[in-house]
Amino acid sequence: MDSLGRNFRVSVFGESHGPAVGVVLDGVRAGLPLTAEDFKTDLLRRKSGATGTTPRIERDLPEILSGVFDGRATGTPLTIIFRNENTRSGDYAALQDLPRPGHADYTARVKWKNFNDPRGGGHFSGRLTLPIVAAGVVAKKMCAYSFTARLIEVGGCKDPDRQVEAVAAAAREGDSLGGIVECRIDDVPTGLGEPFFDSVESLLAHAIFAIPGVRGIEFGDGFQAARMKGSEHNDPFACIGETVKPAKDGAGGINGGITNGGTLVFRVAFKPTSSIAKEQRTLNLSTGAQETLRIPGRHDTCFALRAPVIVEAMAAIVLADLQARFVP
Amino acid sequence: MDSLGRNFRVSVFGESHGPAVGVVLDGVRAGLPLTAEDFKTDLLRRKSGATGTTPRIERDLPEILSGVFDGRATGTPLTIIFRNENTRSGDYAALQDLPRPGHADYTARVKWKNFNDPRGGGHFSGRLTLPIVAAGVVAKKMCAYSFTARLIEVGGCKDPDRQVEAVAAAAREGDSLGGIVECRIDDVPTGLGEPFFDSVESLLAHAIFAIPGVRGIEFGDGFQAARMKGSEHNDPFACIGETVKPAKDGAGGINGGITNGGTLVFRVAFKPTSSIAKEQRTLNLSTGAQETLRIPGRHDTCFALRAPVIVEAMAAIVLADLQARFVP
Amino acid sequence: MDSLGRNFRVSVFGESHGPAVGVVLDGVRAGLPLTAEDFKTDLLRRKSGATGTTPRIERDLPEILSGVFDGRATGTPLTIIFRNENTRSGDYAALQDLPRPGHADYTARVKWKNFNDPRGGGHFSGRLTLPIVAAGVVAKKMCAYSFTARLIEVGGCKDPDRQVEAVAAAAREGDSLGGIVECRIDDVPTGLGEPFFDSVESLLAHAIFAIPGVRGIEFGDGFQAARMKGSEHNDPFACIGETVKPAKDGAGGINGGITNGGTLVFRVAFKPTSSIAKEQRTLNLSTGAQETLRIPGRHDTCFALRAPVIVEAMAAIVLADLQARFVP
Amino acid sequence: MDSLGRNFRVSVFGESHGPAVGVVLDGVRAGLPLTAEDFKTDLLRRKSGATGTTPRIERDLPEILSGVFDGRATGTPLTIIFRNENTRSGDYAALQDLPRPGHADYTARVKWKNFNDPRGGGHFSGRLTLPIVAAGVVAKKMCAYSFTARLIEVGGCKDPDRQVEAVAAAAREGDSLGGIVECRIDDVPTGLGEPFFDSVESLLAHAIFAIPGVRGIEFGDGFQAARMKGSEHNDPFACIGETVKPAKDGAGGINGGITNGGTLVFRVAFKPTSSIAKEQRTLNLSTGAQETLRIPGRHDTCFALRAPVIVEAMAAIVLADLQARFVP
Repeated sequence: MDSLGRNFRVSVFGESHGPAVGVVLDGVRAGLPLTAEDFKTDLLRRKSGATGTTPRIERDLPEILSGVFDGRATGTPLTIIFRNENTRSGDYAALQDLPRPGHADYTARVKWKNFNDPRGGGHFSGRLTLPIVAAGVVAKKMCAYSFTARLIEVGGCKDPDRQVEAVAAAAREGDSLGGIVECRIDDVPTGLGEPFFDSVESLLAHAIFAIPGVRGIEFGDGFQAARMKGSEHNDPFACIGETVKPAKDGAGGINGGITNGGTLVFRVAFKPTSSIAKEQRTLNLSTGAQETLRIPGRHDTCFALRAPVIVEAMAAIVLADLQARFVP
Repeated sequence: MDSLGRNFRVSVFGESHGPAVGVVLDGVRAGLPLTAEDFKTDLLRRKSGATGTTPRIERDLPEILSGVFDGRATGTPLTIIFRNENTRSGDYAALQDLPRPGHADYTARVKWKNFNDPRGGGHFSGRLTLPIVAAGVVAKKMCAYSFTARLIEVGGCKDPDRQVEAVAAAAREGDSLGGIVECRIDDVPTGLGEPFFDSVESLLAHAIFAIPGVRGIEFGDGFQAARMKGSEHNDPFACIGETVKPAKDGAGGINGGITNGGTLVFRVAFKPTSSIAKEQRTLNLSTGAQETLRIPGRHDTCFALRAPVIVEAMAAIVLADLQARFVP
Repeated sequence: MDSLGRNFRVSVFGESHGPAVGVVLDGVRAGLPLTAEDFKTDLLRRKSGATGTTPRIERDLPEILSGVFDGRATGTPLTIIFRNENTRSGDYAALQDLPRPGHADYTARVKWKNFNDPRGGGHFSGRLTLPIVAAGVVAKKMCAYSFTARLIEVGGCKDPDRQVEAVAAAAREGDSLGGIVECRIDDVPTGLGEPFFDSVESLLAHAIFAIPGVRGIEFGDGFQAARMKGSEHNDPFACIGETVKPAKDGAGGINGGITNGGTLVFRVAFKPTSSIAKEQRTLNLSTGAQETLRIPGRHDTCFALRAPVIVEAMAAIVLADLQARFVP
Repeated sequence: MDSLGRNFRVSVFGESHGPAVGVVLDGVRAGLPLTAEDFKTDLLRRKSGATGTTPRIERDLPEILSGVFDGRATGTPLTIIFRNENTRSGDYAALQDLPRPGHADYTARVKWKNFNDPRGGGHFSGRLTLPIVAAGVVAKKMCAYSFTARLIEVGGCKDPDRQVEAVAAAAREGDSLGGIVECRIDDVPTGLGEPFFDSVESLLAHAIFAIPGVRGIEFGDGFQAARMKGSEHNDPFACIGETVKPAKDGAGGINGGITNGGTLVFRVAFKPTSSIAKEQRTLNLSTGAQETLRIPGRHDTCFALRAPVIVEAMAAIVLADLQARFVP
C-alpha cells in the first residue's frame, strides 16, 4: 500500500506521464498556517538545474485540492497535486521488451501483469518524490524540529571540489555516480518511538527505503559500531544545562527504539543513477536474447544531489507521526 | 505498537522478569503442520552457551496456547509463550537512578513516567527475541523460501579464528564486541513488495531495526553502491534456464521495491553488547552527578553471535506477510 | 482517519466549497477495465432531480488523475476527483454562531478549534458521497457480486404511491422525511470475513455508518430476531443444486462473521434530512441565547431517496476488500 | 484479523477447548493501577448462574502475563489469559458432519478447509467474550466515562417479571430467546471521533458486531428516526450550566460522526441462543441428506442475559482508543 503513518498518514499517487502526481495527508493539525509559498524553498532544493542533474524544466506548482481554508489546515484530509506537463511519451513501446537495468521495468511488468504504465517509469518515477517533498513541508511545520540533511559523499569523494570534478567526469563518460546523505535532527523531545516494531529506527528506515535508489541506512556510529568495543560505542548520559542528554551520538540519539534527547543522526547510501547514456546489455523479454540498450534522453548524472531534501521530508513525515502519537 | 504485518501479523509481549514472554501470530495459514519440535533448531541457535555468550541456562520450552489443533494451525490467532524462570530480580532498585549507557533504562523511564518494569531491562530485554525466533519458525514454514543468515564479521574480523581470539580478548578486558550478519534468501518469487512505502527494503528494514542493537542495514552492494558507477552497479537481466533473473545481486534482488527473481541479500550491523564489566561513567538521575557504574552479572561479550537466527526470523516474518498479500 | 480497508483501501478527501472532492483507491486489481463511462449509471442514481431531492444541477464528471492507463487499472493508486463548481459560499459567516441542529457545525467547530471549513458543511457535506459512489463503481467491478439496494420505506410508508404523497406533504410543510434502504448481495463466495473483529457484519456496519445520516443497521431478521425463538430464527442448511446454502436468510447470509453462501441481507435506517425550511430553535454560541434559525436555500426533502446507490457503494468497497484478502 | 484499535489495540486469541483464551492490549496508559481484583465485578456479571444461563461453573481467574509491574500498567503490551479447565471434548467428531444451525460450524469448516478446531465452537466460542470483558475493564479505567448497559427487552417482553416467565417457558420447550441491550455512556468529551470512516458510530458498530449473536445496532432514535420528521428528530443545542449540550438524544450524542457532548445512546439486538434442545433439521455434509439434529448438553436459554457487560466492554474499548487519539 502506498501510505505510511498512524496518526499522521501520507498516501502518494500518480504516474510520471499521467495527468498528475499528488499526496493525501491525513491527521494534519487543524490551524496549521499553510500557503503555496511555504513549498517554494524545499521544492526548489529538489528541482533540477544544478550540475549533475537533468536540465529539464519543471514548473511544479503545488495545487491544494482540500484541507486548507483561509490559509490554515482544517484538520481534514489535505490533498496536494502537481500537474504533469509536456509529457511527450513518445516511443516508449520500443523499450517495452528491453527492461532497463536498475529500473523497475521488469518487476512492475511481472507484478501487474503488463498493465503497469510504462511511460517514464510510471508510478516508479522519481517524479513521485515531488509530492513527498510537499508532504515533508507540512510535516516539518507540524513537528517544528530542526532538520538538516546534506550530501557528505559523491562518487566516493568527500571534498566538494572533487565531487564537482567527479560528476563532470562521469557525465563525459555517459556514466553516473551515487552518494551519501547525512541527516541530523535537533530539538526532538525525549520519549518518541516505541520498543521493537515501532522503534524510531524502524519507522525512519521504513520511510527512507521508500525513496527510490536507497541502498543502505545507518544510525549514529552505524556499520562502524560493529567494529567498536562497548566501552567506545556506549554513550554516557550527561546533564547539559537542566537537560539530560547523551554525551555523544554513537547510538544516533536513540536507545531501545526511543529518542534519548540527543541529536538524531543517520546516513543514507544512494546508488548511482540507473539511466546512463553508456551502452548496456539487457535481456529482450520477447526473444530471450541479450541485446545492447541505449537509453535516450538526458538524465541526472547523480540524482543523490537532489536527495537531501527528500531525506528530510521522509524523516519529517515519520517524526510528525511520532509527535502526533506522543503523550507528553 | 508492538505488532508488525498486514496479512500475517506478529505481536510480541512480555518483560524479562515478568511471568512470561510471548507472541500472537494472526494470519497463519490453516493446515500448516506445527509441533513444539519444530522450534528446537532455531531456539537452540539463539540459545546461550557458545563462547562469547552468557552461560545462563534457559530451558525455553515453547507453550502453544492457541491456534493449533491436532498438530496443525487452525487459521485463527496462534499464541506461543515462554515462561520466565529463575528470575531473581534482586537489587535492581539500586540501579534505578543510574541508567546503563547503551540501554533503554533512561528512555523507558521518561517515556512511561517511571512506570516501566526496570527488572532486567523489562520489555526491552533481549529475551523478547525468543518469541520473535518462535514467530520466525512459523513464518519460515509459511513461505518456504531458503533463509541463510551468518555472521561475516566480529569486532572487525572476517576470519573465524581471529574472531574467536577477539572475543576472548574482549572478555578478558571486561569489554564487548559487535558484528555484522549477512542474510541471503533464495527461491523468492518475482513480484513481492510494493512501490514506495511498502517496498521490500522498507518492510525488511522496519523489521530488522526492531531487533535490539542494530545500527545499520544495507542491501546488495549497500553503502559501497554509493561509490560505484551506474555501469558497475546496475544488474543486467539474463535468462537462467527458463527464468528471467538478474545476472548479479548489486540491488540485493529488488528493483523498485519489488523482488526481481534474484537472491535477496542484505547485511546488518550489530553494536557491541552494551552491558560490560568494565567501569563506565553515567549520570545519577537523582543527584545530577556523574558516577562510576559497575554492571554486575555475566553478559554476552558479543551478542551478535546469537543474532543470525533472529535476523532470519525477522526476514521470514516480513516475507510471510508479503507472500500472504501476493496475487500470483 | 478518512480511509477504510486493508487490501483494498479507500481514502476520501475534499470540502463542499473547496476546489474538489475525491478519492484514492489503493489495491485495485491491475488490468481492470475502467473508463469515465463506467461511472455514469451510478452517479446518475445519486444525482439530484427526483421529487424530494434538491434541484441543484451538478455535472459531476469524474476526472481520473492516476492509476489508469490505456483504459485499464495499473494496480497502483487510482485517484478520482470531482471539481466543485458554482460554489458561491455567500454569507456563511452569519451562520457561524448558529449551529444547525442535526449537522456537524458544532462538533466540527469544537474538534478542529474553529479551523474547520464551514462553507456548505465543509468536509461533512453530502457531496463527499460522490467520490464514495465512484469508489463503489470500481469496487463492484473488482468483486463482481450482484448488489441491489432499494428504498423499502419512506417516512414510515412502504407503499410507493403513499411515499410520493408523504414527500410532497413534508415539502409543503418545509419539513423532511427519513427512510429505510434494504441491500441484498448475491453470488458472494462462502468463507469471506473473519471471526470477531473483522466479521463481515463489523466491516459492513463500519462502512455503512460512514454514510452521513445513518441511524441504524440490521442483518437478516435484524431487531426482529430479538423477538424470535431459536427454532424460528436458526437457518438450517440445505443442498441447493450442488451447493450448500442456508435455507433462509435469518442470519443475513453470515454465520460467525463469515459468509455462508446465502444472500447477504441488511437494512439501513436514514434519518430525515437535517436542513429544513421550517423555523428551528438553536443556541447562539457567542451569546449563549436561544435563537430562531431559518436555513435558506433548497434542500432534499428526503435524502434517503438518493441513498441506495451509496449503500451499494459502501457494501462493494467492503466486499472488494474481503475478496482481496480471500484465499480460495 | 482479530484485533481492533489504532492507539489502544485489542487482540484476542484462544479456542474453547484449547489451553487458554486471552487478550493482548497495546497502548495501555503507563501507571494505570491494575490488580486481579479489578476484574471481579465485570467477570461476575458475565458469568453463568442466573436463570436462563448455563449452570456450568467456570472459575475464570485472570492471569496477567505481561504489562503490569507493582500493581500498575507499564505502558508495554498487557496480556491476560484465562486457562480453560474441565474441557472434556467428548465426541465432537460425531457432530463434524452435521453443522449446527446458527453456528459457525459450516463457515469455519469452509474457510479453514477443515483445519478449524471444532471442539466447543473453537475460536467462535462465547468463551472468547471472557478476554473481551477483561479488556473492557482496562478500557473503562483508561477513559473513565460512565458506562451503563442493561437489557431492555427479552423475547419481546419489556417487563422484567414477564421476561422471567418467558425465559422459563422457552427453557421448558427446549427453545431459546433473544433480547435487546441498551447502552448509555455519560461524561464523554465533545469532539471524539472523525468524519466518515472513523465516525464514532462506525467504530462502535464495528466492535459491537464482533460480539457473537448481534443482529442489529441503532443510535439515538435509531430505526424510528426513519419514521420521524426532521423537525421532530433534530436535536437543538442548549446551554446546560456552562456547557453546550444537545437538548435531547435523537442522534445518540453524535453529529457528523463526532461526539456532541450529549449522552451516547445505542441499542443492540441479540438473536436467540442458537444451541437449542429441540430437534432441528440440518444437512449432513458428507451424505448430502437432511438429518435430525439433537444438540446435547445444557446451554443458555437466553445468552443476551449475559450481554450487557460485553456491550459495555466493547464500547469502552472503542472509546479508550478514541480517547487515546484525542487532542484536547
